[in-house]
Amino acid sequence: MQVLETQNNEKLMGLEKVFSPLSVHLDELNKFLNSQIDCFELELRDLVSYALEHKGKRIRPMLVFFSGWQSENYVSKDLIKVAGVIELVHLATLIHDDILDEAIIRHNMPTLDKKYGSKIALLLGDALFSHALILASEFEFGNVCQTISQSIRRVCAGEIKQTFQASQDHYSLNDYYRIIDLKTAELFHVSCLLGARLGKYPENYVEAIAAFGREMGLAYQIYDDIIDVLGDEKSIGKTLGTDFAHGKHTLLSLKLMEKLSREECLEFCKNVHEKRIGLKELKRTLLEYGIFDQVISLLNKKIENAAKLIEPYQFMPSYSYLIGIQDLILDQIARINSSFAKEKSEK
Amino acid sequence: MQVLETQNNEKLMGLEKVFSPLSVHLDELNKFLNSQIDCFELELRDLVSYALEHKGKRIRPMLVFFSGWQSENYVSKDLIKVAGVIELVHLATLIHDDILDEAIIRHNMPTLDKKYGSKIALLLGDALFSHALILASEFEFGNVCQTISQSIRRVCAGEIKQTFQASQDHYSLNDYYRIIDLKTAELFHVSCLLGARLGKYPENYVEAIAAFGREMGLAYQIYDDIIDVLGDEKSIGKTLGTDFAHGKHTLLSLKLMEKLSREECLEFCKNVHEKRIGLKELKRTLLEYGIFDQVISLLNKKIENAAKLIEPYQFMPSYSYLIGIQDLILDQIARINSSFAKEKSEK
Repeated sequence: MQVLETQNNEKLMGLEKVFSPLSVHLDELNKFLNSQIDCFELELRDLVSYALEHKGKRIRPMLVFFSGWQSENYVSKDLIKVAGVIELVHLATLIHDDILDEAIIRHNMPTLDKKYGSKIALLLGDALFSHALILASEFEFGNVCQTISQSIRRVCAGEIKQTFQASQDHYSLNDYYRIIDLKTAELFHVSCLLGARLGKYPENYVEAIAAFGREMGLAYQIYDDIIDVLGDEKSIGKTLGTDFAHGKHTLLSLKLMEKLSREECLEFCKNVHEKRIGLKELKRTLLEYGIFDQVISLLNKKIENAAKLIEPYQFMPSYSYLIGIQDLILDQIARINSSFAKEKSEK
Repeated sequence: MQVLETQNNEKLMGLEKVFSPLSVHLDELNKFLNSQIDCFELELRDLVSYALEHKGKRIRPMLVFFSGWQSENYVSKDLIKVAGVIELVHLATLIHDDILDEAIIRHNMPTLDKKYGSKIALLLGDALFSHALILASEFEFGNVCQTISQSIRRVCAGEIKQTFQASQDHYSLNDYYRIIDLKTAELFHVSCLLGARLGKYPENYVEAIAAFGREMGLAYQIYDDIIDVLGDEKSIGKTLGTDFAHGKHTLLSLKLMEKLSREECLEFCKNVHEKRIGLKELKRTLLEYGIFDQVISLLNKKIENAAKLIEPYQFMPSYSYLIGIQDLILDQIARINSSFAKEKSEK
């Protein structure tokens, strides 16, 4: 989930294009989030302030704004607030994730866990969750509080399933899709759902855009799986191949398991973990078995599914923006694939 | 917070007396909580079921029921549900506390952290918080969701302040009261507040009983501080003197610090931690400086404050039950003090 959230000039150009209609929205969102610091108990303010410095690329707020699109120059207080709520929930999940993963750096800053210790990080994550729900309970319509708390529970269920699966023998494609649906697609889904609902769009559109969000979340997670192997280490700001090395199942490892036996695949992962197999050989093996092509084709399928869901709404001004997000992901994948092809031909 | 929640025959006799008008209520509460398991995602159900086996003594539900008192034979669905919500929040905080404290046993069972590891425990705590808030969002009146999420944030603030203070030089009586107000009294307060509100009592009673709850929470925490040194190791099911040994400030250590210098007090705690000073010597020192008498007198003061707040409501049937909770705490302290006196005279 870190890919679009770190520094990379080429990527930022693409992102900037997608974000360009949102400059008013994002300014208002930043103001809103900063205004929340003083709502916290005195004891929490410095911590909240530090946590808010970890600015992601605001993908979920972007989905909120485009789904509940009003205009480039106007965005309602409700839409800003719900985007803020979802961003706070996302931030809280990242803080708890970083404890679980013993992560040191996030958004080019020490994680809360690293800077303040896991006790403080755990409790601050809880405090951010609860603050998000205080805000959610202030909406007079849209069933925001219930929708958000259900989403948090589903995200937890996904993370728990993933944690259990890491040590289990059987792992199917269904398990994989269930996990990424819960841990990643859920918040994409709810961003679109609440954006459209609070933007006061009709129910059929709300349903369509919410389903679009879910497919986009799945696509985004598959994209993230690919990036973990084929990305540019500098630009994504983390060591590549970590999913494989940590035995975390992704679509790539699942597809490899269809070619090798489970035992061979586990042995392979172990070798990656123990650095007997380096990134180059990892890439070569995945290429040899045609894994990248398969996975990219599954990613494309998700993007197509998503596009179909909003096809009936082409007349809406936000349609082109939503398609723009898809193009951004596809462009990224094309760019990565072509630089990988170049790398191969140079050998 | 474990004292009233573990096995002890004498104590249970006292508790049973206080709980006797609540047998219908507690049966309904248990049914309600068990009925929630199937509302969770499939991946979470076994974990939730295990977490619910950790039955506390239901102190907070007791406050909900007495504050919103209807009758011995009738309790509304709203009251059961809000008691369930608060119990789930309490359970989630215990699960997260046990990770922070690396606790192994809770309610005579392995903690979730011990049984499933800290990743699962952290995520399940989050899932229980979010489920509590899903339920809270279902109330049509009483502002339950906002009230509960504000309380969770305050509990976190208290725990965070306590974590920071453990390593800080300056620690005042005000700091102590602020911490226990947030980490302990808050949920007592909200139990009484929401109980009375959902029992549809008038606003002046709601305010009075909520303030009673807060004072009782403070009293309970002071009681817990005393028990940590003077309690019966078997019955409270944990090693005594751990607050001192872990450098956690309590009313006892604060009062000792008024007699010794801070340096001497820190040296003393270090000696307790490193077992150069045993429990007997700890008790003897606290006795020598008159700490127990001082602290028990402060506890009595809180109990008196609480009683005064509900004095105008003596005509209400639940008044005697609420006073019964106070008597239980006072009886406990008297019993502990007299067995301590006996112990002294035997030497």
